[in-house]
Amino acid sequence: MSLHPVVSRPGGRSSRVLTAVYTSVGELVGEGADKITFPVIAERAGVNPTTLYRRWGDVTDLLEEVAVAALTRESEAVPDTGSLEGDLTDWAIAIARDIARPQRARFLRAMVAARIDIVTSCAVTDTRREQASLMASRADERGEKSPTAQQILDHIIAPLYYRVIFALELDPEYARQLVGDVLSMAG
Amino acid sequence: MSLHPVVSRPGGRSSRVLTAVYTSVGELVGEGADKITFPVIAERAGVNPTTLYRRWGDVTDLLEEVAVAALTRESEAVPDTGSLEGDLTDWAIAIARDIARPQRARFLRAMVAARIDIVTSCAVTDTRREQASLMASRADERGEKSPTAQQILDHIIAPLYYRVIFALELDPEYARQLVGDVLSMAG
Repeated sequence: MSLHPVVSRPGGRSSRVLTAVYTSVGELVGEGADKITFPVIAERAGVNPTTLYRRWGDVTDLLEEVAVAALTRESEAVPDTGSLEGDLTDWAIAIARDIARPQRARFLRAMVAARIDIVTSCAVTDTRREQASLMASRADERGEKSPTAQQILDHIIAPLYYRVIFALELDPEYARQLVGDVLSMAG
Repeated sequence: MSLHPVVSRPGGRSSRVLTAVYTSVGELVGEGADKITFPVIAERAGVNPTTLYRRWGDVTDLLEEVAVAALTRESEAVPDTGSLEGDLTDWAIAIARDIARPQRARFLRAMVAARIDIVTSCAVTDTRREQASLMASRADERGEKSPTAQQILDHIIAPLYYRVIFALELDPEYARQLVGDVLSMAG
């Protein structure tokens, strides 16, 4: 998927349409709608379905864009506590709290259920990878041993999302354990 | 969920019904059916919907039971190569190959999408935990250092399923990397 930066000026028509579309998607996912299609979203948002087809091409792209917009808003600032352990702990706990909320969990499940073919990139993963790289490179600059960004993704992000996707209990203590495990890999 | 051992004798009526139901669920998931409900499954399987309601209570339970039946059949024998590294590598690669198949991937996504509330246990996770415990305890008996069964779940199973659920590429090389990572935690 790609983001289409059509929001030319704040408060303009594009911005209003975007807000209505995002809100409608969030509502439909939150209500556990069986089938989230462009016509369904368009009706809820009060826009022409053609607008959606033209802009996103595929409903999966729109769902993912909304998911990324939400998570970027809520965890935009990557923690900078002065130690990798502190950074990873704050980051993992914030993510655990965020994705365990019922609305977000339903959203994630709806998003993955909409996928059919193998995707070459996943915006959720890409965003998390950038955040992990930033924390790992700060640790390197401080001379701390650090796992790779890929290890941080595989051993913190994947288990957190696994729990949410499979609807298993997820608490901050679990996030702490994962951080301990991944730090023990740092070499 | 719980398994209901109603199959009293091989080839009996219960067994035929079970086979028809399992096959129908597999077909519906494979076809990417939008909504897999008891009436839809019953029609496909040629059985009375009441039979399904009485036996499974909830369609999520049935979906999970089919998933577990499939994975137990295909990976029933936990590897016993003589070393933890060998066992985990064979196990992780077999799982990666199994869950990356398009039909299985669609099945997993349909299964998680059907979940709404937090579940207290997940049969997929429970089965994998038993297998991990067996390999870890064999390693202990041989005097090998071993990660815990929970670490094996968190750092091998979760990342493998994360990739499939998010429709990302999954190859045997990735499974090997995860095994290397989790072994580096063994202490």
